[in-house]
Amino acid sequence: MERPAVGELTPPNRTLMGPGPSDVHPRVRRAMATPLVGHLDPAFVDLMDEVQELLRYVFRTDNEWTVPISGTGSAAMEAAIANLTEPGDTVVVPGNGYFGGRMASMVERSGGETVTVDAPWGEPLDIDDVRAAFDAHDPDLLAFVHGETSTGVLQPDVPALTELAHDNDALTIVDAVTTFGGVELKVDEWEIDAAYSAAQKCLSAPPGASPLTLGERAMAKIEQRESSVNSWYLDLTELTDYWGEERAYHHTAPITNVYALREALRLAAEEGIEARWERHERVANGLRAGIEAMGLELASTSWLPSLNTVRLPADIEDATVTDELLDGYDIEVAGGLGDLSGEILRIGCMGHSARRSNVLSVLGALGDVLGESDGIDADAGLAAARKELSN
Amino acid sequence: MERPAVGELTPPNRTLMGPGPSDVHPRVRRAMATPLVGHLDPAFVDLMDEVQELLRYVFRTDNEWTVPISGTGSAAMEAAIANLTEPGDTVVVPGNGYFGGRMASMVERSGGETVTVDAPWGEPLDIDDVRAAFDAHDPDLLAFVHGETSTGVLQPDVPALTELAHDNDALTIVDAVTTFGGVELKVDEWEIDAAYSAAQKCLSAPPGASPLTLGERAMAKIEQRESSVNSWYLDLTELTDYWGEERAYHHTAPITNVYALREALRLAAEEGIEARWERHERVANGLRAGIEAMGLELASTSWLPSLNTVRLPADIEDATVTDELLDGYDIEVAGGLGDLSGEILRIGCMGHSARRSNVLSVLGALGDVLGESDGIDADAGLAAARKELSN
Repeated sequence: MERPAVGELTPPNRTLMGPGPSDVHPRVRRAMATPLVGHLDPAFVDLMDEVQELLRYVFRTDNEWTVPISGTGSAAMEAAIANLTEPGDTVVVPGNGYFGGRMASMVERSGGETVTVDAPWGEPLDIDDVRAAFDAHDPDLLAFVHGETSTGVLQPDVPALTELAHDNDALTIVDAVTTFGGVELKVDEWEIDAAYSAAQKCLSAPPGASPLTLGERAMAKIEQRESSVNSWYLDLTELTDYWGEERAYHHTAPITNVYALREALRLAAEEGIEARWERHERVANGLRAGIEAMGLELASTSWLPSLNTVRLPADIEDATVTDELLDGYDIEVAGGLGDLSGEILRIGCMGHSARRSNVLSVLGALGDVLGESDGIDADAGLAAARKELSN
Repeated sequence: MERPAVGELTPPNRTLMGPGPSDVHPRVRRAMATPLVGHLDPAFVDLMDEVQELLRYVFRTDNEWTVPISGTGSAAMEAAIANLTEPGDTVVVPGNGYFGGRMASMVERSGGETVTVDAPWGEPLDIDDVRAAFDAHDPDLLAFVHGETSTGVLQPDVPALTELAHDNDALTIVDAVTTFGGVELKVDEWEIDAAYSAAQKCLSAPPGASPLTLGERAMAKIEQRESSVNSWYLDLTELTDYWGEERAYHHTAPITNVYALREALRLAAEEGIEARWERHERVANGLRAGIEAMGLELASTSWLPSLNTVRLPADIEDATVTDELLDGYDIEVAGGLGDLSGEILRIGCMGHSARRSNVLSVLGALGDVLGESDGIDADAGLAAARKELSN
């Protein structure tokens, strides 16, 4: 067997303005290059404490069980769902985006039954529809997506949904993948029982260690489970021995990803979480103003600053635009998924990528690519963005 | 809620000579600091091809399904076991080390039944005992550990075990966590159906993306499953769409860990896999000679060069030694696990850590710590190691 002839690592230098990953801050990249200590080294144990404290700050929670899960965002999603779903449980999941389907698949693998609350892709769930599902099915869990990466929809009024669930003795699982660290999210004040996220969205760390927080009611349900959690790797009843006071070995943590998460969370704490939410909204507002002044419109009725979905003129395929932006400008944005496949662009405005300079280059490049289309005024778009961003 | 006051990342500079992680090569750490591209970027897709090709080279296989799993080694273990175990399957697992118990727990979560073949901790499985288990239980799968990290035991004559399994229409799952990239392992020649490893052992990459390879018989079994795999995150029937020709989105890959894996695998290919096996054996042989000349003995009857278990004098606790080595010398080695808890040291000799200079410092430091004990001759240990290593 020949030795493969694989050359030096020379990836292109992209500007990441898609649905994630976002651009990683140089300080976080430097943290990734730090020599490792062992995952049971007393120095790493101290560092775990710091990461937990920083995660609590960004989640706005005092939850003891606030930890990074050793995988990308979907691992944290499955940790939340698989641990909280017992065989026979009924779980409400959302039908208004790509990730509700993933939640449903995870629930079913844990022996639960799902009830889907629908809304058109591009719109949030209507609380009356959620209430009707509770009346009809008496569910044990309500799972929903705070910021849908596939549609650019922010689910408004989270406290009304958690109150509805609690009034019916159900727990809540909130997908905060695209809001954590970038859009207002208050786990304790909003009485969320379990929330998870990813590292590579508004936190701008490399994917591989993913935030999860669980309140007392959620942990009590997990501790009282009668059946084993279906995954050993994601079993929180075992993992808590590692992240809890015992620090007992469960599995090797992704040490370097924890270093990176720590540095990215430090950057968030230095900026201040409210200031960070405000920056995301301000910069994304410039992007939105530019898009609308250019003659395009958003595809979401409930704006999510960290992920902007843009409806394309009917004669233009999303892949044409994303390919031209990537090849000609080294800018990554994404096309649509699922019901919105082919119809939209998804432009992220997340973490270290949420900067004025990036908004101006995306709008400029988009103007170049779409400039010849009917009804597109690229110059007006850039002018409107510059005006909005200079405020 | 106050902003946490967390300072700069300043971990101690350890020499990692425990059971993993091992010291990461500077080139791999530099790869980790590389700016990210998206996980669906054409440049990343090319890079995935290269990583797969390099993994095949180190596994000594042509298996198409040779991929990194998005988690640490236990995630790759669970991916292998959960995908290959169907409800009602009978799986033989080993009882001669810590990781057989983990395998059993994963089998049971997948609805399988386990049959444990025992041997004392510190000894390999006896093929006659495995044959007896086949005769009595007609299992569907034989899982065993090639190099046991908890005992320092190398399971010899893997082809005899795979032949026994195949003669009985069973498939084989081999834990190569502590052998892949450091100790002779030949997936195709030995007719192994599934093997997995970790990044932070003999490959010396940071943990977070873990090698897995599956042969045609294993993939056929997975493709013909009648029930869903219990974990969505680790479901290979879905993952194969991402790592296969379609490159369809499943979950976000841990991009930076894949960069690191690629660079660590390149280093292995540059060295040449046979030369790398030979280096591990040569350097570990120096360590072994030193330990024995010092008056200590190995706790394993089947030497595993990458993980050396050393029996301690009865009056010395392992934690005393490991603490002194860490605090006084910045050297990480580990104590015992399970049946060997408190009784042994586990000294790794893996990847970039498997260097003569490291062996000399470990032996020197160990001589300092144990030098006052009865029967310990620290100088003789160092002299023997120097002699052995200068060959």
